[in-house]
Amino acid sequence: MRTAVLRGVRDVALEERPVPEPGPREVLIRVASVGVCGSDVHYYEHGRIGQYIVKQPLVLGHEASGEVVALGPGATRHSVGQRVSLEPGVPDFTCEQCRAGRYNLCPDVRFFATPPIDGAFCEYVVLHESFAHPVPESMSDDAAALLEPLSVGVWACRKGEVSPGDRVLVNGAGPIGLVAAQTALAFGATEVVATDVNPVRLRMASDLGCTDVIDVTATPLADAGYQPDVLLECSGHPGATAAAIRTVARAGRVVLVGMGGDEIGLPLSYVQDHELRLTGTFRYANTWPTAIALVHSGRVDLDRLVTSRHPLADAEAALTSGTRDPKSVKPIVRPGE
Amino acid sequence: MRTAVLRGVRDVALEERPVPEPGPREVLIRVASVGVCGSDVHYYEHGRIGQYIVKQPLVLGHEASGEVVALGPGATRHSVGQRVSLEPGVPDFTCEQCRAGRYNLCPDVRFFATPPIDGAFCEYVVLHESFAHPVPESMSDDAAALLEPLSVGVWACRKGEVSPGDRVLVNGAGPIGLVAAQTALAFGATEVVATDVNPVRLRMASDLGCTDVIDVTATPLADAGYQPDVLLECSGHPGATAAAIRTVARAGRVVLVGMGGDEIGLPLSYVQDHELRLTGTFRYANTWPTAIALVHSGRVDLDRLVTSRHPLADAEAALTSGTRDPKSVKPIVRPGE
Amino acid sequence: MRTAVLRGVRDVALEERPVPEPGPREVLIRVASVGVCGSDVHYYEHGRIGQYIVKQPLVLGHEASGEVVALGPGATRHSVGQRVSLEPGVPDFTCEQCRAGRYNLCPDVRFFATPPIDGAFCEYVVLHESFAHPVPESMSDDAAALLEPLSVGVWACRKGEVSPGDRVLVNGAGPIGLVAAQTALAFGATEVVATDVNPVRLRMASDLGCTDVIDVTATPLADAGYQPDVLLECSGHPGATAAAIRTVARAGRVVLVGMGGDEIGLPLSYVQDHELRLTGTFRYANTWPTAIALVHSGRVDLDRLVTSRHPLADAEAALTSGTRDPKSVKPIVRPGE
Amino acid sequence: MRTAVLRGVRDVALEERPVPEPGPREVLIRVASVGVCGSDVHYYEHGRIGQYIVKQPLVLGHEASGEVVALGPGATRHSVGQRVSLEPGVPDFTCEQCRAGRYNLCPDVRFFATPPIDGAFCEYVVLHESFAHPVPESMSDDAAALLEPLSVGVWACRKGEVSPGDRVLVNGAGPIGLVAAQTALAFGATEVVATDVNPVRLRMASDLGCTDVIDVTATPLADAGYQPDVLLECSGHPGATAAAIRTVARAGRVVLVGMGGDEIGLPLSYVQDHELRLTGTFRYANTWPTAIALVHSGRVDLDRLVTSRHPLADAEAALTSGTRDPKSVKPIVRPGE
Repeated sequence: MRTAVLRGVRDVALEERPVPEPGPREVLIRVASVGVCGSDVHYYEHGRIGQYIVKQPLVLGHEASGEVVALGPGATRHSVGQRVSLEPGVPDFTCEQCRAGRYNLCPDVRFFATPPIDGAFCEYVVLHESFAHPVPESMSDDAAALLEPLSVGVWACRKGEVSPGDRVLVNGAGPIGLVAAQTALAFGATEVVATDVNPVRLRMASDLGCTDVIDVTATPLADAGYQPDVLLECSGHPGATAAAIRTVARAGRVVLVGMGGDEIGLPLSYVQDHELRLTGTFRYANTWPTAIALVHSGRVDLDRLVTSRHPLADAEAALTSGTRDPKSVKPIVRPGE
Repeated sequence: MRTAVLRGVRDVALEERPVPEPGPREVLIRVASVGVCGSDVHYYEHGRIGQYIVKQPLVLGHEASGEVVALGPGATRHSVGQRVSLEPGVPDFTCEQCRAGRYNLCPDVRFFATPPIDGAFCEYVVLHESFAHPVPESMSDDAAALLEPLSVGVWACRKGEVSPGDRVLVNGAGPIGLVAAQTALAFGATEVVATDVNPVRLRMASDLGCTDVIDVTATPLADAGYQPDVLLECSGHPGATAAAIRTVARAGRVVLVGMGGDEIGLPLSYVQDHELRLTGTFRYANTWPTAIALVHSGRVDLDRLVTSRHPLADAEAALTSGTRDPKSVKPIVRPGE
Repeated sequence: MRTAVLRGVRDVALEERPVPEPGPREVLIRVASVGVCGSDVHYYEHGRIGQYIVKQPLVLGHEASGEVVALGPGATRHSVGQRVSLEPGVPDFTCEQCRAGRYNLCPDVRFFATPPIDGAFCEYVVLHESFAHPVPESMSDDAAALLEPLSVGVWACRKGEVSPGDRVLVNGAGPIGLVAAQTALAFGATEVVATDVNPVRLRMASDLGCTDVIDVTATPLADAGYQPDVLLECSGHPGATAAAIRTVARAGRVVLVGMGGDEIGLPLSYVQDHELRLTGTFRYANTWPTAIALVHSGRVDLDRLVTSRHPLADAEAALTSGTRDPKSVKPIVRPGE
Repeated sequence: MRTAVLRGVRDVALEERPVPEPGPREVLIRVASVGVCGSDVHYYEHGRIGQYIVKQPLVLGHEASGEVVALGPGATRHSVGQRVSLEPGVPDFTCEQCRAGRYNLCPDVRFFATPPIDGAFCEYVVLHESFAHPVPESMSDDAAALLEPLSVGVWACRKGEVSPGDRVLVNGAGPIGLVAAQTALAFGATEVVATDVNPVRLRMASDLGCTDVIDVTATPLADAGYQPDVLLECSGHPGATAAAIRTVARAGRVVLVGMGGDEIGLPLSYVQDHELRLTGTFRYANTWPTAIALVHSGRVDLDRLVTSRHPLADAEAALTSGTRDPKSVKPIVRPGE
């Protein structure tokens, strides 16, 4: 099968590889759509993310959908032909964290496109059957792939206990901020304000239902007059994060979603006086059923985020799209085209 | 002022009473709209509800809105002319339950239209300023009054931890069921099924967004094939309650909203095997801000529930409307008309 | 190996069976101690528990400890010689309930001594390595076996959110009530009152730290003057359950632990007025680490519950001990003796 | 009455002031014991704490106990002669935060010994009856006073969801760390490790039940090998806080109790990878009943913390005791002596 392989920094090439064999309880999936994530771009540009270092050729792509084409031994949950969304991190299922329902924290998780585990920029992948989530016929392949970033938004809203009537500030309107904002609305938040420096993204935030947007190049957040119950921090920018925390209401929640920078300067007395709760987030757990229901019921629009589609041979163009084009939000690689 | 007084079973008459004086931190409110609740009808027909017995003339009506027309000593939260929704149960604020945020369980709460406390079927009432909730200009007087039953729905959904993507069964599509169903949708539930025996109510449930309705005279609930995560029991019918509990999914929640019957036969082994959680509900606490936000943002439609409007002189007609007309859902008394 | 087999109602006999082979990720355990549970006795006396029917010879016993003597393929968590406590219900690990951390609700769980799965009244058993919990050297074999009923107590206290300073009523002071009471104390409850009709059990409840005990043959519970925050219902008696519920304080919790009777008459208006929360319980999940820590730190005493020890050949005597002797609390079978 | 007044930095003098009159629902209390808190010392030494500035003479002392000697109008909860512990921050009871049960976040709270509200270094104070908590006869006046710092510990453990079997790290073994450690044990934590640089305090931590102590001048925390589920940060030292956060286990909780420094450098990728939850704490709410139960049942020993007692005339000696004597933990002022 054809596979787009990251061979070194800014070096992606098509290779022929054998189609993998599904192991026990695994299914073989023909890949339909794969979203490009910021982490894919980061590996492409830098060859590493923090402690995760690309030491051997790596296949990128972890936001994927496809169709089940074969069943491994003992796999019983699908019929061949079932369209699925891929949950890309398979844990060991039996460790303490897994048994407690926190499988995202499993120390032995194998996560797509994270060295040395390959991802989905290829024609076929295998996956444990319980992580291949059937999707309704009405859902597009692209939307099915983007259930992965939507899961990040669902996880953020759960961790932040976003509740009906809440006021939510989404700091940073990149792809994650845009799904987080939509998710917050779907969780019943009635004031959802997004910030960014990119007017294209702010316009999309408005179009997707945000009740207000703030271009922080024009209006410092502190002057915007908002006092959110929940801050969904999706910018990864330490200074912007500290500024946003200082707007949160008493007993408010701060969810750290964005990565970037090793250290945040936490405004201690503000956090104490307002008794804020902060939480880190690491991927997600048990989010796919919710994400599927939100898209299927029309409460979240994922197709709207797609700004370009690329065949596998142009995977590199998909990876560089965001850098080249400020209007790019979510490029999609379509290995079957 | 003119006041509709319940003088005995099925005996309501207009009386002249003095306009009350607002006490410390109270406001005087000119009443605009008052919804008729099942409890009002029950007092009218039976002179009692369980341990609460009408021993002296009682003014009914506890779903009310109006306009602040005077401020008592120390009242600072309103300007004269502010339109408000009335939260009708004022607790003592300082007991153990109040301090814990459960003011609905305050043993010394004074609740409108509950013997011996008078309600709002009259031209003016006084209320503690913190229980007179300002409403946006866009909200109708009727909707502002119906924030009270909506609060019951919000409380039920909170107690049942209704979450995005949940499947919810609303047992009984009377006024409370209809607000509970809308609230469940606003909380992100993506499958909300309502049951009733009254086709008019089932049609309204559909119109308000329920994903399915079940006429249990035609289809026994057990045959309908639903397996909800949350049961919002609004029928108050012991048999229907037990039948509905037996459909709830593993780890599901059961919220008892309806009253009626002293005893429910709880199917113990079903509850154990599925590890269900059940909760009683007693009125509500801290629901008005959420209810206001849900109506103001268009997620809940209260005006749609109003099926008739009556001047104060016809309060008795409002009280008997439900019995006379199967199409009646929510009659409103308008003391100013 | 020698195995005590239930061949029919009140018919247990020793048989020779082959020592089982540990499968992938399983360990082979030489059984040291096995507690006799009420469910074992019920199968022995009636050949069934509700829908679970003994249709073929069954090995009883699911409260067990032992020593790892061999490792199956891929099992890496133990060394041979490690003493362990057995968590007797192994789920499929990958279903929706398992992934959510509720593996006790896994529809495909295989639970010891539940038809048709054999239990531990034998010399050797195999078990998934992650359900064979290492115990400290200081813990006796009997105590290690009784971590299973202690887990029921831990689960009950978690479900009931027993918190420091709480007042707890333990309804029924059988083996489960006695561990539940100790657990409630270990959770910080400062008033723990046990009820029973058996003075031997009430004395043991006192000795184990209950702050009061009530012999309900002498003092009806309603007259005892307690108003608990949490009711741990361990009697399984419908009438006693309803009576106990009627004592619970506002916003209190009711945990149904005992089985028995298909239906409880739930006092609806009491539950509503006091806004009680009730929960079913089905076994337990993620309790062993807590149970081990509580015993190891001396906060719970399990050895105290042991009232008799029996070699495997006398398994039947262990099963009938409770019926014959009102002083019997927890008989232990020791297959190695 | 005699009153110790802070007239300026390091300037405390006895003055005669009139005995206050209890207002509506207030009680007059003859003060028995008052603990000296770090905040009292800070006001004494610096004349301010952050934004709170001593602009006029201030009476210090907010950890107090005493005896009710008179009742104001409408006060019905006490009899004259009742010994009480004082909860020193009275909120407005009716604001949004109060109604939600978070009265510690009431913007209009009046808190003892916080400018411009006077404290309890005097013979008599008045207090709202619902904040004067009756204590059992067996509890000493000193212990009754120290229910205030114990409440800080209870609040920290609640916010950190300290649960039975948890491993807890208490960072800093000053008076607050010492109550937090005891509280963690009372909440069922089975590993409670305290750090400090003062060997006297570490010895007291051991004596009070900590399972281990770490002198961080000898052993850097990172080398101690602990991996707590919950960090109770009581040092207020930014560097020590960041180091301690880096030891917390996956899904662990961090409770910020200590003040000091405007900013903590939060190790972002550690917080994300381990999905830690952090929370600020601001005083406490609804803690007195729990604190009383824990002391009364012998689970927490407050008398042990008292290292010196001083008459009112020596209030200044009490305030300087900590600076002068490394063995000082909790000095007590006894206005009646």
